[in-house]
Amino acid sequence: MEENSRRKFLQQAGMATLASVTPLAAEPERTKELFIHHVFFYLKNKNNAQDEAKLVEGLKKLSKVPTIQFAHIGTPAATSRDVIVKDYAISWMCFFKNIIEEEIYQTDPIHLEFIENYSHLWERVVVYDSLGPKKIS
Amino acid sequence: MEENSRRKFLQQAGMATLASVTPLAAEPERTKELFIHHVFFYLKNKNNAQDEAKLVEGLKKLSKVPTIQFAHIGTPAATSRDVIVKDYAISWMCFFKNIIEEEIYQTDPIHLEFIENYSHLWERVVVYDSLGPKKIS
Repeated sequence: MEENSRRKFLQQAGMATLASVTPLAAEPERTKELFIHHVFFYLKNKNNAQDEAKLVEGLKKLSKVPTIQFAHIGTPAATSRDVIVKDYAISWMCFFKNIIEEEIYQTDPIHLEFIENYSHLWERVVVYDSLGPKKIS
Repeated sequence: MEENSRRKFLQQAGMATLASVTPLAAEPERTKELFIHHVFFYLKNKNNAQDEAKLVEGLKKLSKVPTIQFAHIGTPAATSRDVIVKDYAISWMCFFKNIIEEEIYQTDPIHLEFIENYSHLWERVVVYDSLGPKKIS
């Protein structure tokens, strides 16, 4: 779908939340970029293996959202330099084609169902969204 | 190289820093995992475009470290929910085959040269190292 008609389609679909990001969609060079969404989950019941497994189960379902290009579920690695944050329970990282696809993910029924069914498990999340070239020149 | 002989090779090469991670290398299932190293740089001169460009220049050189499987240089995206951290200047994310390859990266001459030539630019870094299956089942 051509970018302008895509925007029109999304607007017609009543996705009001996209309004704030449409200026980016108007920049054609953005299509050469990759959007990385990285979430760190902190559980209410710290170090609770059952809750951790339940969250992983939820994230596996969440990985089925069609706009996700790549997803990774991780736990803190064994590295231990001072600058390394490792107090979170689960790392969830996904790639999106662009910011619009990530916004679509936010409102995808699978994502909403994930929040409904699993958000009681976490105390907080820390999210990093970053955008940059797909390939380093 | 078979995993045991690889360990032997690394040990013989005097890479003492690897000592703490060898137990993981002994777990064969770890080879099906992907190591994600995600660094957020905070510049000394905040919002200084010249320093930011200089750091990106350094990261482009850093991306040549042979053990890096994939690298991404990003800046904070335009998303703006409460949980999103966006006060950093540059996001640097790389994939490694495993924790050993990441440790090799840490001591690679290209990495050491990067630190020598560019570390004066940043005030601090926040690092997340996470490990999980290559593919979500």
